[in-house]
Formats: sequence, structure tokens, C-alpha cells
Amino acid sequence: MSPGAPPRVVIGDVTPQIDGGRFPVKRVEGEPVVVGATAFADGHDLLWAVTRHQPPGSSTWVEVPMVVVNAGMDRWEATFTPLDRGTHRFEVRAWIDHYATWVDATRRKRVDGRSVASELLAGAALLDDAAATAPPDDAAVLRAAGARLRAGELIDLTDPGSDDRPSVGEIYRRGLDREGGSAGPVSEVLVERERALFSAWYEWFPRSTFVGGERADSSSSMDPVVRHGTLQGLIDQLDYVAELGFDILYLPPIHPIGTSFRKGPDNAETAGPADVGSPWAIGAASGGHTSVHPDLGTLADLRELVDSAGEMGIEVGLDLAFQCAPDHPWVSEHPEWFRHRPDGTIQCAENPPKRYQDIYPFDFDTDAWRDLWDGLLGVAEFWMDQGVRVFRVDNPHTKPFAFWEWFIAQLRSRDPDVILLSEAFTRPEVMRRLTKVGFTQSYSYFTWRVAKHELVEYAHEVLIGDGADAFRPSFWPNTPDILPSHLHGAGQGMFAVRHLLAATLSASYGIYGPAFELGDNRPAGNDKEEYLDSEKYQLRRWDLDDPNSLRGQVARVNRIRHRQLALHTNRTLRFHAVANDRMLAYSKSTHEGPDPEPTRPHRNPVLVIVNLDDVDVQRANLDLDLSALGIDASRPYDAHDLLTDQRFVWTGPQPFVELHPGEQPGHVLRISQSPSEASPRPPTATDQP
Amino acid sequence: MSPGAPPRVVIGDVTPQIDGGRFPVKRVEGEPVVVGATAFADGHDLLWAVTRHQPPGSSTWVEVPMVVVNAGMDRWEATFTPLDRGTHRFEVRAWIDHYATWVDATRRKRVDGRSVASELLAGAALLDDAAATAPPDDAAVLRAAGARLRAGELIDLTDPGSDDRPSVGEIYRRGLDREGGSAGPVSEVLVERERALFSAWYEWFPRSTFVGGERADSSSSMDPVVRHGTLQGLIDQLDYVAELGFDILYLPPIHPIGTSFRKGPDNAETAGPADVGSPWAIGAASGGHTSVHPDLGTLADLRELVDSAGEMGIEVGLDLAFQCAPDHPWVSEHPEWFRHRPDGTIQCAENPPKRYQDIYPFDFDTDAWRDLWDGLLGVAEFWMDQGVRVFRVDNPHTKPFAFWEWFIAQLRSRDPDVILLSEAFTRPEVMRRLTKVGFTQSYSYFTWRVAKHELVEYAHEVLIGDGADAFRPSFWPNTPDILPSHLHGAGQGMFAVRHLLAATLSASYGIYGPAFELGDNRPAGNDKEEYLDSEKYQLRRWDLDDPNSLRGQVARVNRIRHRQLALHTNRTLRFHAVANDRMLAYSKSTHEGPDPEPTRPHRNPVLVIVNLDDVDVQRANLDLDLSALGIDASRPYDAHDLLTDQRFVWTGPQPFVELHPGEQPGHVLRISQSPSEASPRPPTATDQP
Repeated sequence: MSPGAPPRVVIGDVTPQIDGGRFPVKRVEGEPVVVGATAFADGHDLLWAVTRHQPPGSSTWVEVPMVVVNAGMDRWEATFTPLDRGTHRFEVRAWIDHYATWVDATRRKRVDGRSVASELLAGAALLDDAAATAPPDDAAVLRAAGARLRAGELIDLTDPGSDDRPSVGEIYRRGLDREGGSAGPVSEVLVERERALFSAWYEWFPRSTFVGGERADSSSSMDPVVRHGTLQGLIDQLDYVAELGFDILYLPPIHPIGTSFRKGPDNAETAGPADVGSPWAIGAASGGHTSVHPDLGTLADLRELVDSAGEMGIEVGLDLAFQCAPDHPWVSEHPEWFRHRPDGTIQCAENPPKRYQDIYPFDFDTDAWRDLWDGLLGVAEFWMDQGVRVFRVDNPHTKPFAFWEWFIAQLRSRDPDVILLSEAFTRPEVMRRLTKVGFTQSYSYFTWRVAKHELVEYAHEVLIGDGADAFRPSFWPNTPDILPSHLHGAGQGMFAVRHLLAATLSASYGIYGPAFELGDNRPAGNDKEEYLDSEKYQLRRWDLDDPNSLRGQVARVNRIRHRQLALHTNRTLRFHAVANDRMLAYSKSTHEGPDPEPTRPHRNPVLVIVNLDDVDVQRANLDLDLSALGIDASRPYDAHDLLTDQRFVWTGPQPFVELHPGEQPGHVLRISQSPSEASPRPPTATDQP
Repeated sequence: MSPGAPPRVVIGDVTPQIDGGRFPVKRVEGEPVVVGATAFADGHDLLWAVTRHQPPGSSTWVEVPMVVVNAGMDRWEATFTPLDRGTHRFEVRAWIDHYATWVDATRRKRVDGRSVASELLAGAALLDDAAATAPPDDAAVLRAAGARLRAGELIDLTDPGSDDRPSVGEIYRRGLDREGGSAGPVSEVLVERERALFSAWYEWFPRSTFVGGERADSSSSMDPVVRHGTLQGLIDQLDYVAELGFDILYLPPIHPIGTSFRKGPDNAETAGPADVGSPWAIGAASGGHTSVHPDLGTLADLRELVDSAGEMGIEVGLDLAFQCAPDHPWVSEHPEWFRHRPDGTIQCAENPPKRYQDIYPFDFDTDAWRDLWDGLLGVAEFWMDQGVRVFRVDNPHTKPFAFWEWFIAQLRSRDPDVILLSEAFTRPEVMRRLTKVGFTQSYSYFTWRVAKHELVEYAHEVLIGDGADAFRPSFWPNTPDILPSHLHGAGQGMFAVRHLLAATLSASYGIYGPAFELGDNRPAGNDKEEYLDSEKYQLRRWDLDDPNSLRGQVARVNRIRHRQLALHTNRTLRFHAVANDRMLAYSKSTHEGPDPEPTRPHRNPVLVIVNLDDVDVQRANLDLDLSALGIDASRPYDAHDLLTDQRFVWTGPQPFVELHPGEQPGHVLRISQSPSEASPRPPTATDQP
């Protein structure tokens, strides 16, 4: 209306956004983006606002109208669901809707019984103005409506149009100048494959996969009980991983291990001639970060492992541990990549009084930092060339954030499907920054969150809140570095509880096995979180067929995870009240599609009730939020335990639940209700675990 | 250390900041700015961070070292106190402190009993590097320290330096490249004069200031009881305003009033010949926004009023009401500034079914918007030329935000002391935006916040929280537009409560008088907030000497406000528990100077206890946070009621308080404690109200 005047609509507080748009928001394919914004103008004119988004590589904007979700706070919302992988862009745009303002005022005058003759003429002028810049078909409709107004005809101002006939208001609005009006900031959404969010990891030291007796080449004279495992041996045991139902088989470093200052069993300062050393002390005469340890096999074996696993739906993940043993070829080839002491020796890793003599860190402050960055990128690219797309990154918080931002962008431009898990158990801001600069997932504090209030609070922090727009936690009950104190001497009941929590609270989780499912509960000391006889320093032999193994539960829960789409997301997690401090109840459901309603019924709900007590029977009446489960409180509904195949019929929000530690750590319930009481609902496919 | 490498320190979440730095934070002279930031780096190196700030017009940065206030959350803080009016800039900068890192590691190795011979050489090299770019004196100190290290001497690593001898660490740090390292965003602080934050407003219709009998020129033949007041008559009564102790005397519009569609008493649609009309229907044959209503006097009278008031320490505030009566000269001079209906007539203000036939709004959508903006700017500049620096702006939320941002910037560049009060009783986002774009103060919802929980919640929202960095609320118990329902038929007790709350909760407040202190409690209807016999449409005569007047309390509280510096700020407000829902207790104190401690003892505390009940006696034991009052709980302390001059000696946090509505609405207590029990403290000057 006024050439050159600044637009009158103010757009603010656009969400989701990370650090004011400095970093992209993260989603996976099909995961909705609910865009919120504050939008308002001076005066009483009505607004129209849209969210528009642009798929990767496209220059076309797709528009979604926004609706007011909180009028008093001028809050608007729209939802779009990105389907293509890559970086999407979105922004909020808003205009004064002069036509809607006119309709509203004219309608109120008419209700008030006043003459609207002058208003009809004003409306006609408004439509004629709009027609002047509209495409011919739209212009014709606008002019025709204007003519009727000018003729004094009271056209139906409330006409909402229909699917095949847009209303006059819709035609008017689609004619508004798309580059005019007010615009919020352009934000980015990084959309990745589903496994970036939904994944179950199994960590297994390949050198501890020897199971004895059955192998054709068992000609070695080594101790017959514990022999060095091989990649070929691991290939033979892929069916075990498949039975357990894991998506990712992650191997600690598979490279040659240094001999200088090699550590002995349980981190002893000196190693005997037969000791195998830590796989994280990377590099020896036989090679560095792009070599395979000769005792494990060859590069060809690794490729075969990747292929064989892939055929079974399992991805192989490797470890990126950017540090060197003193014997690493780079130490002589690139001395400038390391920090030298005044006496010319290289500074080993240390955090006084601790020293790690078997490890040289890289010096990222080196003048040759560009060469170093390129060298490290080459490592990851080398393994991507072998078919690897999943990496667990060791101690990323000891390398510069700017390095990771560059490094991960390079890998992602090579293949957007690359997944990097950040192994940073450190301060929250540091962990968050690593995921902002690009890490796909991150280890989390779940490992130490045990009590009910700890679990609820932590879940809200990392799984549901704004933090979840960048940070994707992976819940691990144990790692080779961490046997948390609640597992010291614990029975299988506690392992079962921790597994069930990890696998159903978070869309991504992992276990360090077979130590976990076999219940290894022996710490190196009462006040230590290290394992006794840690696999980090010695070979272990695991009896996978131990009758006490948790493999049955692990397999069943992983199968439920795959079938129940509700467990593929974190965003729908909500907790339900239980008046028992040892019981935890929570549900997840699948996302609705785009939906203008601020509250939406949830679909395909799964309700999990965990007995946090691994010793005593716990019982309580629940206090379910049935609307969050999409259940009509006045009619019975079905609760089908996918763990035990028990079926309950409940009515109302307060069913009674009793859980016996010896029998099951909890219920994983598929909740459903037949559409009406007249037609009892038959079991459906999703009722099966 | 590595030329060209991106800095390793990450700086985030810098506070205070408004909309990511889009708008300046507001402070007044001497009001501290506590800068917070998240700062961290990869690895274990120690950081050094500073906040640096630049006064208006200066290109020199002043540095304040930051300290860690929450190590787990990597949160740093520093405080600076801007003294000059104008726009200050500040930013956070941080570096890896290699020297401190070296000191720390070396000290830990020494404690561990290890040789540090190599470390001493490394430290010497570090100091030599620093000396290479340091000024000569510093370089000499650094080289000397390096030489001692190189000679194997264990210099005192913990030496903190002294006032006249900086430590080696300090010299090292001041040599760090000020343009290197990591930098947060540059933010702005708008620093205004104290009255921008601390002010008491008195609104008085000058045409209702006739007090009769005493005036020399009372030759009029008008009704002797109510005659049209004049600016000269107001000058005669300035001593009343001075006695009440107000800082600002705000006059509703003083311009000629239109006759077309003039409103009669109580907003009647038609006016009789003697009716005076609404002062907000601005403009008649005798002039528009830059003219004085002939019945009030002349421009010379206005200048005399401004000068006379100024001599008494009172500023005169005018009303900027940007709208016109149909008789305004601009209607014919600038028809393009108004919206025309199809029949050629001008669109009057309306919000159907309401119509305001006596008012034409400006059309900010006009093609001639630049001329309109200039014209309106000219109005304010005209009054500034008459010495006016304070404006109350009528309905700013019906004019574009971009207009106000430009308009206020123009006025402020003319004189930074200009103060604009936003009269926008509308949605919170709109009110906040107006203060972000430049309004100094804003009317607030205090007018309708009555219950204890409402007052506490609202105070936290607008007086203490982040919102207070831009929004400066003014608390008004009434306005000519609003006689809130709790004052309908209320006795002086309720008026006293509302006044005490407004004047002590908020550093800025105002009353519409004499209606307020004289207890005008008659609404135009039970369900209406309009006054009966509203001064907006008719002359009123007020008996200022009414023995029931609240003028004594008003005067006393305003005198306390001036003496007690604690009441000049909102930022230190905190509430104290009282186990009685009809009693409210809160304290304020003066700011400490810059202080690296996150919690600081407060100074000059004033404790206010209000009986919200204007009918019944209320009593309770308080539950004071004595540390917030700077009181040692183990010793007695003095509570001196500045309203009544009562003196109490209390011990411990739970004194008993009883308040009688007929006698006093509350206590305003100066809290103090003698330095030791041996020396009883004599009364001091600040003990006097």
C-alpha cells in the first residue's frame, strides 16, 4: 500500500533455531518440523503468515499457512515434514491481510445493523487492486467478486471456498507479493537418514570373538582357552548380532597397536611379551590409522565383514581415535604434528598426575595444522572407501571444534549418510557444541542416571526439549571404560532394567557386549568404574550360550523397537504419573502429519512401565494421561504386552500394575482401542512384537 | 600458536542481549551491567576471558576480567558500570591461557614429586615468545622470569603479584593479542539519565486546575463553581505538586479541541455549546499539534510553566497523541495523510461496533508516509524547542513500530535526555516491542494486578527478569481511562494500599490526580472502568484541601523514594515469605560496584511490608532472607519505619508484624545493623525519610 515503507508486521522468536541460526536444526526423513513464531503488527489489522521451506538443491519455496496457537502471546505455528535428505531451508513470512481485515470489519458493521454501502465499494477497490497483479484466472475471479460488491450485492463474506474452488480470500492472499511483507531469518534443517536418530549399537572387540573348537585354522599353539579373534571369526558370528537385532556393529580400533610403553592387563605400566596392548594405542611398524592389525586379518577381511553384515541389515561402525602410539609411522613422517618438549622428545598425553605414555596426542596448535587436518580427513575417507558409513569418534572434545565442523562437513558432502557418534563424557556445553558442529549422535549421562527423578529430568533435558533439536543422545548402560557403580556385583535383573530403559527411552542406544548381556559385573576396584580384566588391555573369551544371558530380552526388545514406529522417535516421549518412586511409566507415539491443531491425538502409542527395583516386587495404580494415548476414557482399551504377549483390558486412567523383578523388568504395552464398542477390534499386524 | 587456525575458544549465550543484539539493552547512569557468557575450549587448557566495553564516542576498550561463576556449565561473568549517557558497546573475548595452563600442569607435576626440569625450559620458551611482542618493560620482566626458569630456579608459580607489581601471569595475559582470540557478538547498552528508570508522574488536566476565589483575573461570567483552568493557574499551584514530591507533571493534550462531532459529558455522542470536548480530539481552526488551546493560555504560558516547574525540580511532560479532530488544519492541508472512503469522506477511527467520530487516525499506509513521519517528528521537535523533554505517547501500538524506531532515534539524537512513556495497554509482545524500539517506559498491567500471587508473578516478569533489560514498567493505580474495579466505591484504605505498592515495587510509577488522592471511586457503570463525570469530557473542580485526601501519604512516600537509593532500582527487588496471603513483603537494595563474586551482600536495604487487605487487621511472622538484607542473623538489627518513624529491634528472620488498615497500609523499613554489638550504631542521615 505504501511504496518503500518498512513492512508493518514484526516476526520474532522463530523456533526451532540453534544459536540464532548459526547451526542447523536436525531431523531425519519424515520427522516433522513444527515452526513457531511470534507475529504481530500495530493496530487491529488481521495478519496472514506462512512458513515456507525449500528442499535441498531446490530454489522453489513450498508454503504452509500458519495458524494462531496463542492469540494473547501472538504465537503462530505451522508444521512441515521434510522428506529428502540434505539441508532444507525455511523461513516465516507475514503480511497485513487487508482483505480479511475488510471482511471482518464489514461483517461486524453488518451485525451491528449499519449500512455497509461504502464498505462494499472499498472492498471492490481492494479486489481490483489485487487483480491488477494477479494471474489472469485469479484476476478474473477477483474482478467478478469486486463487480458484485460494486453492484451492492452482499456476497458471502464467510465463504470458505472448497477443495476445487478457492475462496476469494485465498485468491487474494496467494496474490500477495512473496518477496514483500515481513520475513524472519532463514534457518536450516539438516535432514538425515532414519538411522541417524533410530539405531541400536552393539560394541564388540573383534579380538575377543574367538569361541574355540570350531575354527578350521586352529593350528596356533596359543593358550587354547583364549586366542586372538579375527575379522573372519567375527564374520562367522554375525548371526549372533543379527539374532540380537542390532543395527550397528561397532568395533573398537582395528589398527596395528604400538609396542613402546604398551600397557599390560588392567592398565599395568609394563606389558609382557604376550600382552596385546590397548587398541587405542594406534600405530606400529606394520601401519597406522589406515591399516588393519595383522592378527585381526586384512583389509579384504574388513571389506568382507562390511558386506556380509550389510546383507544381514547390520552396518559396521569403526572407531576414529585421533592419536598415535609412539611407533606410529606418522611420528617420524610428520614430527611437526606433535608437540615436542625442550629436550626434543615428544610430549605424551597427560593430565597430571595421570600420564598415558603409550599415546602421543596430535598438536592441533601446530603451524602445520592444515596438513594435519587433511591427514585426519584422509583416514575417514579411506574407511568410507571401504564401505564404512558409521564412526564412533574417540574423545572428540580434546580436538578443536572448528576442526570437527570442517571435518564432518567434508565427510557429509562425500556422503550425507555418514553417521558419527561423539564419545564425549564431559561438561554439557562441550557435548552440545560437538553435536551442533555436526556430530550425528552423542554418548550421554544416561549411564549414571538411575533414580526415577534423575531419569525423568535427564529425559526432559536431552530427549524432548529444545536441546533435542541438535543433540541426539545415545543411551548406553555400559562401555568398555564404564561399569557404573549400580552394576557392580549386580544380578541380571538390574542389567535387564538398564537395558529396557536405554532401549525404550531413547531412539538410539547401545551396549558394550558380550560383557553386558553376560552380566559382567566385576569392577577393577570398589571405587572404580573400570572393568576388571578389561578388554582394553587383554583378550577375553565370552560364553555366548550362557543360560543366564540376557540375549533373549535384548533380541525381543530390539524386535519390538523395529516394529513399533513410536519407538523410532524421541519427540513424542511423555511421562505418566505413578504413585510409586520405584516405578516409571512413559509413552511414545508416531507423529501426526502436518496438522494445524496445536494439540493432536497421538497415534500408535506404546506405553512402557519399568520396575526400577531389581529386587522387590513393586505395584501401583498408574495415572495415565489417556488423551496423550488417544484413548477415550469412557470405554475399555487394550494393553498388549509385547514382551510377554500378555493382554490386558483396561478402563480409565488408573489401571493397577504389579511387576516382579524375577519375571520381567517391565511392560512394553501396545495401547489400542476399538473404534466403537459394537465392533470388537481384531488383532493387527502391529500387535505383534 | 598456529597462524591462521580458527580460535579454539567458543563463546556463546552472551547476556544481557535483546533479540540477538537487534536492540540495545537499557540502563541508566551508574546502573551495573552484569555480563554473562558461556566460554570453553577443547581439551584441558585453561582460559582467560574479559568483557570489554566502550563508552559513547570512544574507540578505546575498557577491559574487565571475567571469572567462572559455574564451572560445570562453563559460565563466566563480569560486571561493568557505565557512567556516561549514550550508547555503550561491549563484547566478550577469550583466549587459551597457555601460561596459566603451564603453571597449573607444572605445579601438579611438582606436587606429584616428578622432575619438572623439562617443564621449566618449556615455560621459559613460552615467556620468551611472549616477550617478543610485549612492550619493553613487560618484555624485560618476562625475559628475566624466563632466565630464572632456564637456570632451573623454581620461581613462585603461585605469585599473585600485588597492586604495584603485576604477576608474570598478568603481564603475559596483557600481552595477548587483543584482536586475536575468540570474540562474542558486539552488543549495545543504551545508558540514559536516572529519571528514565526512577520517576514519579503526576497527571493533571490543566483545564481542571481552577480552584476559585483566589485568582486575580476571575472576571469570567462562567459558572463560578467550575471554570476552565489555565496554564497560569497551574503555575500558581505548582507548590501542590512539589509538596506531593512528584518528578514529572504530565498534562493531557493542551491543544485546540475540534468541534465537529465533539463528545459531551460521559462520552455522549453530541455536545452542548458549553461542553469542552476531549483533549485527545486535537485540532481546530485555532491550530493543531503545535498550538496551545486558547482557553488554557499561550505558548509563552507553557514555556513559563516549564521554567517554573523546572526551578522546583519538576519536569513538565506533554502528551503526543498522533490523531486529528476533523477540524484539524492538517485535514485540509494534508488530505493524503488520511484514509478516504469511496465517497470521498475521511475514515474516522473505529473498531466495529465502536466508532470515534471525533477522531481521524493517520493513514500510515499512505504513499506520502515519509511526509507524514516528518510532520509528526516536527511536532515533538517543536515541543522540545519549548524545553519539554518528557512525553507520554498516546496509543503507540496503533502506529507502525518502524515509525517509532525512527522517530525516537531522531529525538534521542537531538537530546539523549528525552523520555517517552508508552501508553499501550495491549498484548505483552506488542508492549515489549514498543520498548525495544525505543520507548523509555511503558504503562503496565499493574493497574489490574491485585492479589498477592498476581503481584509477585507480574513483578518477576517485568521488574526483575530478562524482560527488564528492555522493558521499564511504570505502575499506575489509575488513569483517566481506567478506574479498575477494585477501586469502585473503595475507601481511602484501598487507595493507600495501591499507592504504596506502585511507589515501592516499581522505580517508576504515576497517578492520575487529583482524582486519585481525593479518592474518586465512582465508575460510569458497575461493569465499566470509565470514571463517572470523566475529566476527558468535562471540567472538574477538585478540593485539594479535603481532609480525607491521601496527600500526606503520597508526599511522605515520594520523599522516602528520593532519600532511599534502594528504591531507585528494580533489579535488586526480592520477595520474602509471609505466611499470610493478604500480606506482601519485599526488599530492595542499592547495587554493589563491580564485584567478581556471584553473590554479593546488598547495601542500604529497604524492606516493605504491605497489608493488601484494606478492611481487616492482618498479622503474621515474616520469614526474611536475612542474607539478602546483609543482616547477620545471630545479632539484633534495626527496622526503622520511615512512614511512621516507629523503630523496631528485631533478631532472627521471623519478626512478628501486625498491620491495621485504618492506621497504615504497610511498613517501609530501613533495615540496618550495627557493625558489632559493642558499639551501638547512631542514627544516620539515611534513617530520615
